[in-house]
Amino acid sequence: MKKVEDYIKSIPDFPQPGVLFRDVTSVLDDAEGFKLSIDELNKLLEGVDYDLIAGVESRGFLFGSPLAYINNKAFVPVRKKGKLPRETVEASYDLEYGQATIEIHKDAIKPGQKVVIIDDLIATGGTCEAAAELVERLGGTVAKMIFLIELEDLKGREKLSKYEVGSVVTYKGK
Amino acid sequence: MKKVEDYIKSIPDFPQPGVLFRDVTSVLDDAEGFKLSIDELNKLLEGVDYDLIAGVESRGFLFGSPLAYINNKAFVPVRKKGKLPRETVEASYDLEYGQATIEIHKDAIKPGQKVVIIDDLIATGGTCEAAAELVERLGGTVAKMIFLIELEDLKGREKLSKYEVGSVVTYKGK
Repeated sequence: MKKVEDYIKSIPDFPQPGVLFRDVTSVLDDAEGFKLSIDELNKLLEGVDYDLIAGVESRGFLFGSPLAYINNKAFVPVRKKGKLPRETVEASYDLEYGQATIEIHKDAIKPGQKVVIIDDLIATGGTCEAAAELVERLGGTVAKMIFLIELEDLKGREKLSKYEVGSVVTYKGK
Repeated sequence: MKKVEDYIKSIPDFPQPGVLFRDVTSVLDDAEGFKLSIDELNKLLEGVDYDLIAGVESRGFLFGSPLAYINNKAFVPVRKKGKLPRETVEASYDLEYGQATIEIHKDAIKPGQKVVIIDDLIATGGTCEAAAELVERLGGTVAKMIFLIELEDLKGREKLSKYEVGSVVTYKGK
């Protein structure tokens, strides 16, 4: 039986030289691979008490949205600055060169709500640390962070050590 | 019982003055609204013979991905230029000012495959016309195009008259 990692393609030098890009679109492209990936992510939510799922633009949408649907939860998009139409809160995080800013709707999370944060991949953990900051500023708590892919050597799990973190496939190396 | 339109918020002057933005994030934000919207979109696929779902970045991901999952289909992302890691085909379409270019992976659609195209909203239909062109250039056929929201006065349905088009909520006016 095939595993999720069998569906992941690795693309050298994308989006820039020296990066080995782990491509999740090749998982989605295959009906069985896609179903398997969602089912494996869903196992990471077993026993987790949560109210809604927040997914990080835009590959986090692809995996978070079906999970929200099958678990009868709301889905809250975490987006790059300027794309959400209503009042937002924002947080910035460091990239290798420069900074990026993400936003979430102010009314999307109510005080006391327990939030699962999802993205396709965890590298250094900077994006999800910023997403967690937004959840907490709105009075929510992070129930768990889940990822299809974890790049272990980039130590995202250390940066996010105050949260519960789960991933389906782990790669050594960058 | 609430309907999908009861969950849609309308935001004046976003993203620019004079535009009344129909906000689907307010549908997603509510577990019942989100479930209802997916179930209503799924009704538009009853009796449709198709192999996979292609969703347009990035709000099309939010609705297309759960539909692919529950119907055991693959999901193919249609993305803005430069974001897909493998070999792509691309098509450009006109915006009010300037042009935009979308891409799809060359190996994502095989000749003879029947493709459902989904986006959150149909306005003039330019984006989905370009997405259909990509599907056809790869040898696929468009089985149906579905949308959560249709802005009737912008006449997207006329532009896409050679395709079968379905939508859940229709608004008059722009």
